[in-house]
Amino acid sequence: MDTWLLSRMQELRDLQGLIGLATWDQETYLPAKAGPARAHQLSTLQGLHHERLVDPRLGEALARAASQDLTGDARAMVRVLSREREREVRVPSDLVKALAEAQSKALHAWREARKERRFALFQPALQRLLELRREQADAYGHGGERYDALLEGHEPGMRVERLTPVLSALREHLIPMVGKLVGARRPVARLFDGRRYDKDAQWAFTLRLLQDIGFDLEAGRQDVSIHPFTGGTHPLDVRLTTHVDETSPLSAIFSTIHEAGHGLYEQGFSPAHYRTPLASAPSMGLHESQSRLWENIVGRSRPFWEHYFPALRAAFPEALAAVDLDDFHLAVNEVSPSLIRIESDEVTYNLHIALRYELELLLVRDELPLADLPAAWNARMEKYLGVTPPDDTRGVLQDIHWAWGELGYFPTYSLGNLYAASLYRAAERALPDLAGHLRRGELLPLRDWLRTHIHSQGFRLPAEELVRGVTGHGLTDTDFLAYLKSKYGALYGVSL
Amino acid sequence: MDTWLLSRMQELRDLQGLIGLATWDQETYLPAKAGPARAHQLSTLQGLHHERLVDPRLGEALARAASQDLTGDARAMVRVLSREREREVRVPSDLVKALAEAQSKALHAWREARKERRFALFQPALQRLLELRREQADAYGHGGERYDALLEGHEPGMRVERLTPVLSALREHLIPMVGKLVGARRPVARLFDGRRYDKDAQWAFTLRLLQDIGFDLEAGRQDVSIHPFTGGTHPLDVRLTTHVDETSPLSAIFSTIHEAGHGLYEQGFSPAHYRTPLASAPSMGLHESQSRLWENIVGRSRPFWEHYFPALRAAFPEALAAVDLDDFHLAVNEVSPSLIRIESDEVTYNLHIALRYELELLLVRDELPLADLPAAWNARMEKYLGVTPPDDTRGVLQDIHWAWGELGYFPTYSLGNLYAASLYRAAERALPDLAGHLRRGELLPLRDWLRTHIHSQGFRLPAEELVRGVTGHGLTDTDFLAYLKSKYGALYGVSL
Repeated sequence: MDTWLLSRMQELRDLQGLIGLATWDQETYLPAKAGPARAHQLSTLQGLHHERLVDPRLGEALARAASQDLTGDARAMVRVLSREREREVRVPSDLVKALAEAQSKALHAWREARKERRFALFQPALQRLLELRREQADAYGHGGERYDALLEGHEPGMRVERLTPVLSALREHLIPMVGKLVGARRPVARLFDGRRYDKDAQWAFTLRLLQDIGFDLEAGRQDVSIHPFTGGTHPLDVRLTTHVDETSPLSAIFSTIHEAGHGLYEQGFSPAHYRTPLASAPSMGLHESQSRLWENIVGRSRPFWEHYFPALRAAFPEALAAVDLDDFHLAVNEVSPSLIRIESDEVTYNLHIALRYELELLLVRDELPLADLPAAWNARMEKYLGVTPPDDTRGVLQDIHWAWGELGYFPTYSLGNLYAASLYRAAERALPDLAGHLRRGELLPLRDWLRTHIHSQGFRLPAEELVRGVTGHGLTDTDFLAYLKSKYGALYGVSL
Repeated sequence: MDTWLLSRMQELRDLQGLIGLATWDQETYLPAKAGPARAHQLSTLQGLHHERLVDPRLGEALARAASQDLTGDARAMVRVLSREREREVRVPSDLVKALAEAQSKALHAWREARKERRFALFQPALQRLLELRREQADAYGHGGERYDALLEGHEPGMRVERLTPVLSALREHLIPMVGKLVGARRPVARLFDGRRYDKDAQWAFTLRLLQDIGFDLEAGRQDVSIHPFTGGTHPLDVRLTTHVDETSPLSAIFSTIHEAGHGLYEQGFSPAHYRTPLASAPSMGLHESQSRLWENIVGRSRPFWEHYFPALRAAFPEALAAVDLDDFHLAVNEVSPSLIRIESDEVTYNLHIALRYELELLLVRDELPLADLPAAWNARMEKYLGVTPPDDTRGVLQDIHWAWGELGYFPTYSLGNLYAASLYRAAERALPDLAGHLRRGELLPLRDWLRTHIHSQGFRLPAEELVRGVTGHGLTDTDFLAYLKSKYGALYGVSL
């Protein structure tokens, strides 16, 4: 690859890293009054990134490189950057501006609507955003299914045609499964009720977890933010945040494990890919598979807590002295249909996603008038989960995603769950004593297996292809359903 | 001013702010392994800033604006940015690259030379840097005095012709003054000997000082770094750092007051100047005047400690129970010729600067062979301060500035001291009860006076002109010498 092209790739990555820094700082250490100043700085950086990406000289250099006989990695770099550039080029700058304005208005309207608990206050702003996103989908280009063009922004290569059957089948399996688990009515211990738990002790526990899990604290850090996230500037500068809730250490613990899953992915990119388009996950779904694998499959497993529960009890004896491991394990895996997605368990979670995916698809296809959205939401909640939102704030207004104009993002959460289960099953085959490792607090064998087979591959292959190479098959709900049946069947003493 | 020009000004300021963020982060929270990645990111940002600044379209827009009938502030913005751009345009990019390489090599050689305590190991790298800086001075352009072109980078408008007589006269006054003070031999209490002092208590004390001094912690913050500095991204996002030394709280206290002086300047820019070239001090010397005014003139004064000493004693009773205010006041103002500039007191300090300024001038004029530099250094140390460095590390190799290629920077420290004394005297005239305010811990009247007369003016006028408008006269050593005579005459019981 010629040095000019490589240096432009590096410059683009540096700009992305700096956007990462400014965003991380905004959520962690930015002084209260500096919000508008930071918004300007971020907008300047994003503008420069856009300008460099759509630069015709970059297009020519990529075209030249694509016609050359490049090595595998260089070819992949050119392919990934070309795809990113093509998408960016296709959206007219007037539309970019209109979207930014519509987003800003929608965010405001969404907040107001939540206060008043009335979707109608959000509807006009969402309508505008939806029209612009349809326009954007047409600008990106698609083969008749606009949603594909939006999905492509989060899950490159995935299509509605492939996704719908998988998520629908999953939904049809989950609805009766949830019914059985709710019917089993196991009494669940209420943990950490009504006391305050020392923040330093919580923090120390999360740092111990990060160390054990193999998150390199010399190539990353953990800080506190209101909403946990993973950011940073480079694979050697990965920044996790967690949320410390004084009323229960479980919030910080599971947030830390979740974000560490993302963080290990970022730290695991190959040094040969640093500052190139390959130091990136091939999809949001695959990124999310790593956080969910660690948080749910490992972090809510019995072997994991066989090792950590004594330490947790020692750290918080006032809450846990009378709780045994089985009670604890059940309590952190309680299945209970609820109104709110982010509070839901791993069995009902995908029903929340199915609902959103189906509604998004209808909206993007213009098959559901926005005025009918709350009713459609509530009807599906009743049908899938047996609960009905008492108001829009606890229903259709609960997520910020649509106010951001994000469409095609929600399904990546379910893809994360499905990929996680398939990858974990492959890891079990490769590491026959995996449960034993977890039981002894040895988390590195799993991290190393994931690093070799997933993280270090970066964006060489599309997500599903990469997963197929590792597990022998592409996207499927088989492994996830088998995992749920085995785990929750045993926990609730029912046959699923 | 046309909107394109304004938006380019804003973009440049945003980029400077982001350079500030990446630099601050590098010194505070950057993970250990991320140094090289951050260097790349900073270099990319600096490259973009350079590219935008030298952009011919900016040159044309500035020329167009300069020919228009602009309001005072807009005219000043155009003037300040044009000057900055002119300097940047004049340096060929090959020279910029050569300087960066030479700096990097010089820094390495300087560190090695310090370890071996031998200037000779640093000499070739410094020689190269010196030649390139002379070349750069010629590129900038000057009227026969190369040093002027370098000085202009730190102290716009200042010239050797004006500076030399002032610093020489100051030196000639200080040498006998130091002699008298040393001769007075007052016994000075050794404070904080041999114990460890709680870091949290130190931190709390510095935060109280920041609050009292009127540093807005919602428009800035304080963190810890090895070397204290003031940075940030915007007047509403000003970041101070301090150094907490477990063996004495005085290090953190005086660092905090010093940096708060810089920080108040940054926070005090007019909102009308945000994101324009006017939200900037007109010189390093004037910026330094604010840190030194607060650290030395206020922060080492008796009225100030009449208020704070009881609190300090209450915070650290194990060290201060038996110390009285007079002992303490003398101890934090002890005059003692020393080898190291950064450990020196405010009387001897300017002799360290005189020495460096004189040697820099000889070097830039090519009137002193580098091989003779250590001997010239040591001879002046003996002559001005009566002490002789036992080795080069405690002599000519002590400062990092020359290894950075900084020439023309040192004199701004003395300018800071001189401007500080003149401004403080003007403040005393405007605020007749200033000492009373300090005695009662009321620091805001002084802050507000400085904000009105200095900070909020930004870069409307060159430093000396701004000072002249406020004090009635330009650069002078009269006020500084009067301040020293009065303060140290009383402290040491001698007539100066």
